[in-house]
Amino acid sequence: MLGIYVDRKSGMPLARQIHRRLCDLITASRLRAGDALPSTRGLAAYLKVSRNTVNEAYAMLWAEGFIVGRQGSGYTVAEGIILPKPAAAGAPPPALPACPVRYDFRTGVPDLDRFPFRAWARYQRRVLESVRPRDMHYGDCGGYPPLRTAVADWLLRSRGLAVDPEAVHITAGATHALSLAVDVTGRGGGHFIVENPCHIGIVTMLRLKRVSFSWLPVDELGLRIGPPGRRSPIGVYVTPSHQFPLGHVLSAGRRTRLIALARKRNFYVIEDDYDSEFRYDGPALTPLHSLDPDRVIYVGTFSKTLFPALRIGFAVVPPALRQTWNEFRRYSDVQNAIGDQAVLARFIEEGGLNRHIKNMTRAYGLKRTALVAAVQARFGDDSRVIGDSAGLHLALKLPGQSFDRNFADTCRRVGLAVMPCSRYELAGTEYADTLLLGYGNVEPDRIADGVALLAKAVAEHRAGTRR
Amino acid sequence: MLGIYVDRKSGMPLARQIHRRLCDLITASRLRAGDALPSTRGLAAYLKVSRNTVNEAYAMLWAEGFIVGRQGSGYTVAEGIILPKPAAAGAPPPALPACPVRYDFRTGVPDLDRFPFRAWARYQRRVLESVRPRDMHYGDCGGYPPLRTAVADWLLRSRGLAVDPEAVHITAGATHALSLAVDVTGRGGGHFIVENPCHIGIVTMLRLKRVSFSWLPVDELGLRIGPPGRRSPIGVYVTPSHQFPLGHVLSAGRRTRLIALARKRNFYVIEDDYDSEFRYDGPALTPLHSLDPDRVIYVGTFSKTLFPALRIGFAVVPPALRQTWNEFRRYSDVQNAIGDQAVLARFIEEGGLNRHIKNMTRAYGLKRTALVAAVQARFGDDSRVIGDSAGLHLALKLPGQSFDRNFADTCRRVGLAVMPCSRYELAGTEYADTLLLGYGNVEPDRIADGVALLAKAVAEHRAGTRR
Repeated sequence: MLGIYVDRKSGMPLARQIHRRLCDLITASRLRAGDALPSTRGLAAYLKVSRNTVNEAYAMLWAEGFIVGRQGSGYTVAEGIILPKPAAAGAPPPALPACPVRYDFRTGVPDLDRFPFRAWARYQRRVLESVRPRDMHYGDCGGYPPLRTAVADWLLRSRGLAVDPEAVHITAGATHALSLAVDVTGRGGGHFIVENPCHIGIVTMLRLKRVSFSWLPVDELGLRIGPPGRRSPIGVYVTPSHQFPLGHVLSAGRRTRLIALARKRNFYVIEDDYDSEFRYDGPALTPLHSLDPDRVIYVGTFSKTLFPALRIGFAVVPPALRQTWNEFRRYSDVQNAIGDQAVLARFIEEGGLNRHIKNMTRAYGLKRTALVAAVQARFGDDSRVIGDSAGLHLALKLPGQSFDRNFADTCRRVGLAVMPCSRYELAGTEYADTLLLGYGNVEPDRIADGVALLAKAVAEHRAGTRR
Repeated sequence: MLGIYVDRKSGMPLARQIHRRLCDLITASRLRAGDALPSTRGLAAYLKVSRNTVNEAYAMLWAEGFIVGRQGSGYTVAEGIILPKPAAAGAPPPALPACPVRYDFRTGVPDLDRFPFRAWARYQRRVLESVRPRDMHYGDCGGYPPLRTAVADWLLRSRGLAVDPEAVHITAGATHALSLAVDVTGRGGGHFIVENPCHIGIVTMLRLKRVSFSWLPVDELGLRIGPPGRRSPIGVYVTPSHQFPLGHVLSAGRRTRLIALARKRNFYVIEDDYDSEFRYDGPALTPLHSLDPDRVIYVGTFSKTLFPALRIGFAVVPPALRQTWNEFRRYSDVQNAIGDQAVLARFIEEGGLNRHIKNMTRAYGLKRTALVAAVQARFGDDSRVIGDSAGLHLALKLPGQSFDRNFADTCRRVGLAVMPCSRYELAGTEYADTLLLGYGNVEPDRIADGVALLAKAVAEHRAGTRR
């Protein structure tokens, strides 16, 4: 009967299968306008299904307008439903197989084996028990109010930033905050300035958004702010506390110069404070934001201090931008989810975050010390560790060397995940001799072995490039 | 001594207060390049703080480059730090005070008093106990794999959509999925077509993104697809299962015509299936997506079936768009948070979602019946309820009336939240006589009173406009 059949092993309900099959026959013109459909009784008997099942399938077809008529007097195919076969579509490229990583020197990967799972789960249980229905409706797009207050308070205590909770806008991580910052400041057109070398995320984001940008070089005092060009930017992206990837601190002179220029030329500074919670020679530095809250969009994240898949970060938004910022948020992804925000608020309020950062600063500090010692032992005077002693990675300069993407691939094949700095250079080859070594996710007792393997790879690479 | 002081009641640590105060003095040029800082011993004695506290403040200033020198031999202010006072910035406009709502006839607001909190919390506890550190790192930007599988399976069973889990991209709600769809399909320029009247979210989103768009009218067969214009769109936004706001079902003839046109003119159809889980005359309709998975981006959400602040929705993405889609996601907000995804996956797998939808369809069905009866009783033959019997609202036509924003404001003042359809009209006044009545969040026993109050407001409005 018309090639209609049902598959009892399929997950799709029988009525949906009959509906689907009839749809296919109608759109393929095997059933045409005016053609009568089988009676529900006849089709039910043929397919060995209940008559209700066929009725349900017909009711769906009728509601969608594929068939006309009514129950009892029979249905026919409606007019004007023609849909020829589509051309074959290209399949997406297959995903690359992942290599196992034995020594993980990637940047920006925190150590989650030390995460206080039990404490976090305890907070989560307590918070869940106190969640009210009204918190589960749409809320303020800027975030759950107790979390905004907790973040403002934490910024005051840990960074010396005095900000109003209303200025804190909770986002789904730092990348999300940066994306909103670019959308909001860049909506009228104009170009951005980034650092060179630079965090590749912001560069790719600007390219995808088709926003024009240029770059300024970085030296040991941070971003080198030259004389202002004729064309003013609309935004300048900086990592003042711990330049990514080199680790330098933006000097006070350049800080004040950048702010003065932002005021004069009417642009915003986007300050990405991505991992400076962890500082091993002293307390976390004071953000650029403290110099001018009207000119700086300060971006922070809990991806490194807690865990990346939490997807909570924030921006401190200047008053003049807040209305537009909220509009962009409301009409792009509305707001953060309530659950994790409530847990994090309680975790910060009750000191859990501070305790965890203190523990992790000690743990990462030991890893950094072990890594610097291993590097000294293996590369000695041929090498230099650059940048401030902070964050989750260091930059290792090996003068005379030249590393490229191939080097990273070669390392990966022996289980060593490491990134050449050249990957982050937008122009030039000034840092071709520099490698980035993350120590967040490598165990202290594996660091020496990992660096030994790296030294071997470097020696082979040197031999290879000399041939 | 220089006007430095500390406030022991402040939340800011003492060292940060000293640092902040000295920063202010330096940037205000009250301390100038070359000026000596007080000795740590002297300043500590003056402020009655420990010498370590002053040392810590000086170490921060030194690391940031505000001062030069070294511990023991004294510090002086660095060269080149000048930052004049900024001009006063404008304050953001104050927020409007919210009115209390006694009868909530807003559209798209689900009933959360009936949400199975205890079951949800139970799933949450079980999932938390099984979360592993590797799930807490960055994951696949398309979502937690078990959730993608659960959603694909649920689409098969509830909608007859056979989609690969790889095609399901988990987003932070439907608005987020629509935003990504516009970014991905619209990146090369071009214009969109929307419905008139239309969901205001997509229209505001297109305006904010500065994407050009036009509209086509809606009648009782859904979007009226005219003869193709000279200029092909890049995307057409439709709500085929339950047109927002009128509630019509897009007819089969128009469905096939739209898909045929999309193939011929090479555009994508963005199908927003925002609330059609709840259908009172039969099962949920089959999405447009089933007609051509290569041409339709299907968007769904759990905001209405579960709760809005969960922020989980999804898009079923055509193969040819997946790579670009993933790039946009990765460089805008990376991925959804892991916790709620894991809970939702388990909730769907174990039948919790189906049970809840079944319960709520019964509950909303009763509310709809009560609302239709109340409307009949109060407005009788002067009125007509239009659209398919589905979703969380209905459209009430009151021929001869003309409602505007003022009417909504008047209603709000007596505690009645209701929206004129004209709010969603992009052009014309065809639906000036139509009101939208949501029944998701109003209790059945308050419906009759609410409609009585509405009838009074309508009568007064009629009298007012006649004067």
